[in-house]
Amino acid sequence: MSFPEANILEVDLSQKAIRKKVLDGDTHRLYPGGSSLGTYILLKEMDPNVDPFSQENILVFSVSPFTGLPIAGANRITVNTKSPLTGGIADSQAGGFFPAYLKGNGWNSIVIKGKSDHPVYIYIDGDKVELRDATNMWGKVTGESERLIKDDLNEDSIDMAQIGPAGENLVRFANIINMNNRANGRNGTGAVMGSKNLKAIVVKKRLGLEPVDRHNFMVLAREGLEKFKNSRGLQLFGEHGTDRGLINHHKNGFLATRNWKSGYFPEGAENITGTTMTRTILKKRDTCYGCPIRCKRVVEIEGKVDPLYGGPEYETCAAFGSYCGVTSLETVAMANQLCNMYGLDTISCGGTIAFAMECYENGLLTKEDTHGIELKFGNGEGLLAIIEKIAKREGIGGLLAEGSYRAAMKIGKGAEKYSITAKKQELPAHMPQYKPSLGLIYAVNPFGADHMSSDHDTVLTLPPESDARKNLALLGIRKGYDDSFELDDEKVRFAFNTQCFESAIDSLSLCQFVWGTSALYGPNDLVLLARYGIGWETSIYELMEIGERKINMMRYFNAREGFTKEDDVLPERLFEPFKDGPSKGRALDREKYENAKKLYYEIAGWDEKNGNPTFGTLKKLSLGWLIS
Amino acid sequence: MSFPEANILEVDLSQKAIRKKVLDGDTHRLYPGGSSLGTYILLKEMDPNVDPFSQENILVFSVSPFTGLPIAGANRITVNTKSPLTGGIADSQAGGFFPAYLKGNGWNSIVIKGKSDHPVYIYIDGDKVELRDATNMWGKVTGESERLIKDDLNEDSIDMAQIGPAGENLVRFANIINMNNRANGRNGTGAVMGSKNLKAIVVKKRLGLEPVDRHNFMVLAREGLEKFKNSRGLQLFGEHGTDRGLINHHKNGFLATRNWKSGYFPEGAENITGTTMTRTILKKRDTCYGCPIRCKRVVEIEGKVDPLYGGPEYETCAAFGSYCGVTSLETVAMANQLCNMYGLDTISCGGTIAFAMECYENGLLTKEDTHGIELKFGNGEGLLAIIEKIAKREGIGGLLAEGSYRAAMKIGKGAEKYSITAKKQELPAHMPQYKPSLGLIYAVNPFGADHMSSDHDTVLTLPPESDARKNLALLGIRKGYDDSFELDDEKVRFAFNTQCFESAIDSLSLCQFVWGTSALYGPNDLVLLARYGIGWETSIYELMEIGERKINMMRYFNAREGFTKEDDVLPERLFEPFKDGPSKGRALDREKYENAKKLYYEIAGWDEKNGNPTFGTLKKLSLGWLIS
Repeated sequence: MSFPEANILEVDLSQKAIRKKVLDGDTHRLYPGGSSLGTYILLKEMDPNVDPFSQENILVFSVSPFTGLPIAGANRITVNTKSPLTGGIADSQAGGFFPAYLKGNGWNSIVIKGKSDHPVYIYIDGDKVELRDATNMWGKVTGESERLIKDDLNEDSIDMAQIGPAGENLVRFANIINMNNRANGRNGTGAVMGSKNLKAIVVKKRLGLEPVDRHNFMVLAREGLEKFKNSRGLQLFGEHGTDRGLINHHKNGFLATRNWKSGYFPEGAENITGTTMTRTILKKRDTCYGCPIRCKRVVEIEGKVDPLYGGPEYETCAAFGSYCGVTSLETVAMANQLCNMYGLDTISCGGTIAFAMECYENGLLTKEDTHGIELKFGNGEGLLAIIEKIAKREGIGGLLAEGSYRAAMKIGKGAEKYSITAKKQELPAHMPQYKPSLGLIYAVNPFGADHMSSDHDTVLTLPPESDARKNLALLGIRKGYDDSFELDDEKVRFAFNTQCFESAIDSLSLCQFVWGTSALYGPNDLVLLARYGIGWETSIYELMEIGERKINMMRYFNAREGFTKEDDVLPERLFEPFKDGPSKGRALDREKYENAKKLYYEIAGWDEKNGNPTFGTLKKLSLGWLIS
Repeated sequence: MSFPEANILEVDLSQKAIRKKVLDGDTHRLYPGGSSLGTYILLKEMDPNVDPFSQENILVFSVSPFTGLPIAGANRITVNTKSPLTGGIADSQAGGFFPAYLKGNGWNSIVIKGKSDHPVYIYIDGDKVELRDATNMWGKVTGESERLIKDDLNEDSIDMAQIGPAGENLVRFANIINMNNRANGRNGTGAVMGSKNLKAIVVKKRLGLEPVDRHNFMVLAREGLEKFKNSRGLQLFGEHGTDRGLINHHKNGFLATRNWKSGYFPEGAENITGTTMTRTILKKRDTCYGCPIRCKRVVEIEGKVDPLYGGPEYETCAAFGSYCGVTSLETVAMANQLCNMYGLDTISCGGTIAFAMECYENGLLTKEDTHGIELKFGNGEGLLAIIEKIAKREGIGGLLAEGSYRAAMKIGKGAEKYSITAKKQELPAHMPQYKPSLGLIYAVNPFGADHMSSDHDTVLTLPPESDARKNLALLGIRKGYDDSFELDDEKVRFAFNTQCFESAIDSLSLCQFVWGTSALYGPNDLVLLARYGIGWETSIYELMEIGERKINMMRYFNAREGFTKEDDVLPERLFEPFKDGPSKGRALDREKYENAKKLYYEIAGWDEKNGNPTFGTLKKLSLGWLIS
């Protein structure tokens, strides 16, 4: 069979027009879903240099031909738009059940154009698509507006991706929430949705994508279940969630602490690590559609934290915990709940507040600026108060709603050295001093510092006979490493090759915890998923090319926006040696890092001057249409 | 399991030293056999700028971990050295049974260094390796020396790769022959063997490489047999051999005729095409180890052609037939026999004589030069006489033994325009005017014009649901083409991607008629062969990288020898419109060709100025050791 067509739902909010478009299978195969399909649509449909908050910006939700298949991890959705935080391409993934339902209604992408003159939501029931008034829901937190929308439709069997008040208020790191606790978190996509007066996209609950070869597909699905049952590592991951590893980061001296000044958090790490959460506030574990792992946390604290809003991930525990010097898991859980209610990215929110705390401690912000809040590291109550102010853009919240980079520019007085950002976006909680190849990716990744855009160097310390190392060999990475933390040539290859692979995973709307080199299913299984799931005969070669194509489309998008290699930089702080803890004295090596970046450009086929794809690289990836 | 080690037999003829070396599995995996292993050894062991005929040149025979497995097409051997014809890397493949026997004796490579002070041959019986006197065999044609060697060893159960008198006489296109009729044909490797006073490498007949997963391996082997039985195309290929397609080339107007002046050979094409051979002089069909296709010809003409010397391939029929305007299949078969007796590459031999014929017809060579031979196109007797003179370097044979390029330089008077060569090597019989992407490969291929270094554009006219097109999609080639013969961007991608893939096939010592995109087994089967045959978990991605790595090692070898983009050129004649036949008016488009070459360099990651691998490209392919 040929590759499936993509059904694209285009909603023009200015014109109140709803259109169905179809992308032919041959083209769709080049941009098969998720971020690849989203970026393709943006490059085709949008002019460069538009204001992210203008009606000319376009917001795209995309799934893939795999989405909704009855197997673990085939259930993610990506949002792409021009980011109000970075000014470049925005890319953000979420799981849940919403992606499967959207696909169950027959759609691969939803393309939002224009701007409504009043708050609206979109209701999708198969081919029946409605624009409905959302004035009642505007200003409401996610849990409330979900209830209001169910009432409005008089329908309970629905799911939705929505923004909270932070998106409405154009907080530059506002996110998009589904199930009240799953987030398309990064890059401020929720603010773009808010700028369009779009409160929610609501879908009827529909499932039932049938694999083309049901027998072999079910064999693959069962093998995954068996593997899960027999894998202690995956079991532990499910048991304690993504936050399970926090304590180890601390022990190694690489848990980002007090706005990245330290990698060592003895006063709090034990309190906020995953096993502690399991032992204390965890109420239950939750899942995305079709997944046995159940890595999602649901926590409850009587009178303070409602299970409706899920529970904190590792990134959230670090961002509100160690970044801010906060030692209370209860506070972290409350901060997480606020973010899920208001629709805020926890990483950028925690990173921005940690920045503000350091400014405060150094006198760049005063008690006058903070309305009396003693905004020092470790002040949990102050943290919670500031989150609300950010979401509502009240007082200092208005400043911090711009993100730490823009806030620093406004504060002046050298505050920019406290903004721990790449492409103006706050860094996630994996320290490049520990994972130097990931640091390289933080710098060059087109949508800013991201911890899911390549594999982490630490995998290379596993023995060659481990599954992860065998899977990496399929991607051309054969060499292992010691614990020297050095950024050598082979690590640059590792960074690029695994970036291409994870980019393919994202382009197929798959979950990286289930599909990957260190996951439940490996690269060869992915070829089987394609064959049995949708009748697509593919190869790891084609998949790597899909991933590389997407990265290059994103770089090209950014190049149109004026990005150069000056935007591929890391914060100065990473090059300054730690002063305490087991990693004392450790820092990124400037020379090695610069050499690595140069080599990365060469390997990627990007020009040395600006780090943008060359003519030949675009042609090689069937992207000649961008320049002809 | 880990990748197998390579056992390397090093024979230093100057020192009369025989050494066993072992290449560890991790390194071997990067250079798994055939031309990749051979080129690796040359780059490690040899200095640049040595005289090809000096004792500093090294001659390497290599097979792969697959060689000798009981399956079709896993039985090829590659010879690499510095070519006396091109001055760059030499690369030449052969089949037969010799490769399987060599491997059966436990060896992956034989590395010949130095120069013997008298004629010798090497006898390999497992770990027992002897240098034996070959004075008796020196000067003898292949069939005779084979008998003499069997007598000398008093052993019949042996096989050998040997040179004929042409190799001894340093004819720059002398080859290496096994079974008296299989040739490592191109690049003059036989002359290097001759320069070392090495007559033959003789191996005891040993087989028996066991697949690691015998059950699944035999399933794969049986599937191949079934596919062969059910494929009319492969059956016809076996029935009529490689020469089956000659008549179609003529009908399309692209059978290189009279030294490439025309693509149209009405007076002779029907006589020399494969089906005519089957109907007339074919005595039987022969095979390589383990192969059901039996594409090899064995012909017999009472008193003139002995079945011992096999029969002509397509390339030979074109080179001695249409290139030279010779219309007699008998003459072609006799010419083929002479080449197999004397050890001459039929393509360069036919191409050089066609060159001489055109010189003669244009008065650049006279009857005085040719010792009375009327060396006009169509003179079959003259052709046969000249072959003998070349092998013996008698009279004009001494001039032509240098190949047409060097002969033209000596003749002067504009003779170089009649030398139809790339990198000083005569072009094989696939016209770039018909297959423009192959023409690009002719120009850029590191070992000169070669028709087996990429797929042929014509495959792209097949429907998308054909096996070939589905296999190409696994290599990232999705677009089909019409018959417009244009060299557009997508064809450059096709050229590069399939070049990498065929380079991998050569690097694994596999037969391209059995393993490939249009062969008995496709790319996915190759992954299974690796898994079941030797326990190697690989991917098409890793295989493509192996192929690309080898090409870049070869370009690097050539760069050390001073090659630049000025060496990546095609003969002027290809840009001049045909004057007759169905292809009248057709020529390569200069501008498109130059643009394509530029794009090819960019896609390959080679610098624009010299077409050599950049720093980043070498590092990307784990070849940083070449420059550090």
